[in-house]
Amino acid sequence: MAAASQVRRLQRDVEIVVLEKGNWASYSACGIPYLVGGTVSWLKDLVARTPEEFRAMRIDLRLHHEAVALDLEARTVEVHNIERGRTFTMGFDQLHLATGALPRRPHVPGIELPHVFGVQTLTDAEAILAAVEQAPRRVCVIGGGYVGLELAEAFLIRGAEVTVVDRAAQPMGTLDPDMGALVAAAMRKMGITVRTEEGVLGIEKGAVHAEHGDIPADVVILGTGVRPNTDMLAVAGVPLGESGAVAVDRRQRTSIEGVFAAGDCCESVHLVSGAKVNVALGTHANKQGRVAGINLAGGYATFPGVMGTAVTKICANEIGRTGCNEAEAIAAGFEYVTATIDATTGSQYMGDAVAPIRVKMLAERGNGRVLGAQIVGGPGSAKRIDVVATALSARMTLEDVISLDLGYAPPLSSVWDPVAAAARAALGALRPGPGASR
Amino acid sequence: MAAASQVRRLQRDVEIVVLEKGNWASYSACGIPYLVGGTVSWLKDLVARTPEEFRAMRIDLRLHHEAVALDLEARTVEVHNIERGRTFTMGFDQLHLATGALPRRPHVPGIELPHVFGVQTLTDAEAILAAVEQAPRRVCVIGGGYVGLELAEAFLIRGAEVTVVDRAAQPMGTLDPDMGALVAAAMRKMGITVRTEEGVLGIEKGAVHAEHGDIPADVVILGTGVRPNTDMLAVAGVPLGESGAVAVDRRQRTSIEGVFAAGDCCESVHLVSGAKVNVALGTHANKQGRVAGINLAGGYATFPGVMGTAVTKICANEIGRTGCNEAEAIAAGFEYVTATIDATTGSQYMGDAVAPIRVKMLAERGNGRVLGAQIVGGPGSAKRIDVVATALSARMTLEDVISLDLGYAPPLSSVWDPVAAAARAALGALRPGPGASR
Repeated sequence: MAAASQVRRLQRDVEIVVLEKGNWASYSACGIPYLVGGTVSWLKDLVARTPEEFRAMRIDLRLHHEAVALDLEARTVEVHNIERGRTFTMGFDQLHLATGALPRRPHVPGIELPHVFGVQTLTDAEAILAAVEQAPRRVCVIGGGYVGLELAEAFLIRGAEVTVVDRAAQPMGTLDPDMGALVAAAMRKMGITVRTEEGVLGIEKGAVHAEHGDIPADVVILGTGVRPNTDMLAVAGVPLGESGAVAVDRRQRTSIEGVFAAGDCCESVHLVSGAKVNVALGTHANKQGRVAGINLAGGYATFPGVMGTAVTKICANEIGRTGCNEAEAIAAGFEYVTATIDATTGSQYMGDAVAPIRVKMLAERGNGRVLGAQIVGGPGSAKRIDVVATALSARMTLEDVISLDLGYAPPLSSVWDPVAAAARAALGALRPGPGASR
Repeated sequence: MAAASQVRRLQRDVEIVVLEKGNWASYSACGIPYLVGGTVSWLKDLVARTPEEFRAMRIDLRLHHEAVALDLEARTVEVHNIERGRTFTMGFDQLHLATGALPRRPHVPGIELPHVFGVQTLTDAEAILAAVEQAPRRVCVIGGGYVGLELAEAFLIRGAEVTVVDRAAQPMGTLDPDMGALVAAAMRKMGITVRTEEGVLGIEKGAVHAEHGDIPADVVILGTGVRPNTDMLAVAGVPLGESGAVAVDRRQRTSIEGVFAAGDCCESVHLVSGAKVNVALGTHANKQGRVAGINLAGGYATFPGVMGTAVTKICANEIGRTGCNEAEAIAAGFEYVTATIDATTGSQYMGDAVAPIRVKMLAERGNGRVLGAQIVGGPGSAKRIDVVATALSARMTLEDVISLDLGYAPPLSSVWDPVAAAARAALGALRPGPGASR
């Protein structure tokens, strides 16, 4: 919808048809946990623009219409009208692919049972809300990704007994385990049971069978991440990249003339590691959609890539990460140093008016280039990761970060901002010894 | 003290003597408003390191010792021991100047009265705290700078009737008036009387005489900013720069061999305008002190300059600014566009869990280079300015900022981060018309 809106803004006369399988468009899937938790009162609040608003922009949005096949030679799409149960073919001059992602479903018995929910679409949200109506006593979240943990907290707020079961050593696998452990500790403190290094063997009504014993569960949430929804595209011959998502250039163009892609279905360049990655985040989807729309309309815009930035708030902790974590740095062939500092979000003497914050920073051995950072802390912590994300865009070194003119005021930051303090500590790790310039 | 500590860290054997006129060293003057307001309970909490701790580091910190004259030829300093009332001379091989700043005092009758307070040293803080003990009913703050406004709020918390009187059209003159107006409105809403475009004619016991009438006041606070404390240095022949502060290079060296300076007494390069500026902020002082210390000890470090970043929290509003405001952009000869957006700190559908935020951005006409930004908003607003400060360091354009991978999660940021949204709006102002790539 971002691409469609952008095209309409730039081209008054072009005909724009949007096909959407479900009964919602232009919504925030990231808002689903807050709908379940009750911060958001109405499902419709998650809808940014209604079909009527799109129609007023002369964007022909067709809900309940699934694109079931593509003929790139004939430049046609086969469309199934789900409500009327009939299929027809429509032609296109230019095509924009925005098929999104699907929840990863572990291959275990019972995964298709009706009390097992993915968290990807507003249709999923409707199903989860219907389950919430039944006031489930026990909820099991399989997998420790962002959305899974956010939903774990949402169900805790709703009064359920919540268990998260994760294969990894710590939940939130995009953090290094030492930082993920802080998240696990915060969740346990709030009363969520966190079971790590444990796989799921099967699901039945009332229980999840896990490696170390059964987990009673009236509701099961799949927090195991997503995969790009590209099966139909692959069949049609749309080239996929190494990540399994649609391969695009920096203008969001596939290698097929006049065919674009954006959002969870396509891949991006990770600007630190150089790898092609598929990162399913609404913020990337919006930016890529804008860029695709400008280029679809004959303009020029580029999406350079992602830094792997992510933030969230779990059980009173704010979490941020960007760039490479240790595993990613190793995979990319970097030698690196790390430093972790404990600080406060403002001046320490402000007492309860400020919160603890831990910052871990990675820098390349030798040149001191910043490779990534992770933050876990109280209110005011997570969005500090944006400074590192911006520094990564500019390929800054630790010295550069130390010299940044970051805002200081006792309620808002210590005199050495925690990010700069982490860079200072990493510089100490990079150049040890008493004669070093720390 | 930052320089002295750094030298000691790098050089075990050098003799380090520190002369301090007052009875405190290594403290946070920025914490004084929070001491007055009661968030900080004890004056000593503002002291980062005690004289004993410095002595344990073999730093010979001499309190109540004033450097009254310098002989740069003979390489000696004339020292007045205030407690013993005697003066002596000591030699040095290397000299570090850290004389700080003094409050600007309007030249009006009564400015030296005992109920008129500067806010610069812990000695000032002691005097203000003694005045707070008398439970002053009415307080007048002259000038609308950061510290003045912070103290206005502190006295409001203490139950006083507070009036701020400022010559400018809006308080907080480092913001453009349209953004400063938001701060004034927030202060008035909390019950502070804000009188703008009004000069002060004189002060007497119980009242401040202002242009539009008397302001009853048991306590008068000088919020009119500071000037570098360089009179004695100028007499000694230490070269001052265009700003009136000590001129230093990027290694914090004056042009005199072996003489360094850091902190409020020296000037810096404003990295956007290119001007030499004197910005009295603890965060710069700490960084410059570190750099001076490393260079004093024979190492190599540089302080590239400042961006003019500042943040504060006034009457439930967070405020951030960096780079050039409109007046500074004009003075620096830039042609520019501006855009101002109203957004929320998280996704709008999060309701009361997020706060309003207004972001104004300036960019250079033609190339779209970001020149500065200003933010006023609720909790979670101010430190977003750091993204712009970092972008300024890298001389980013609006397109660069739009492409930044900034953290997104509904409680913490809208899907288009407000900073990126402001850049998008500024790009629209830079390249108007329906065919433009906004």
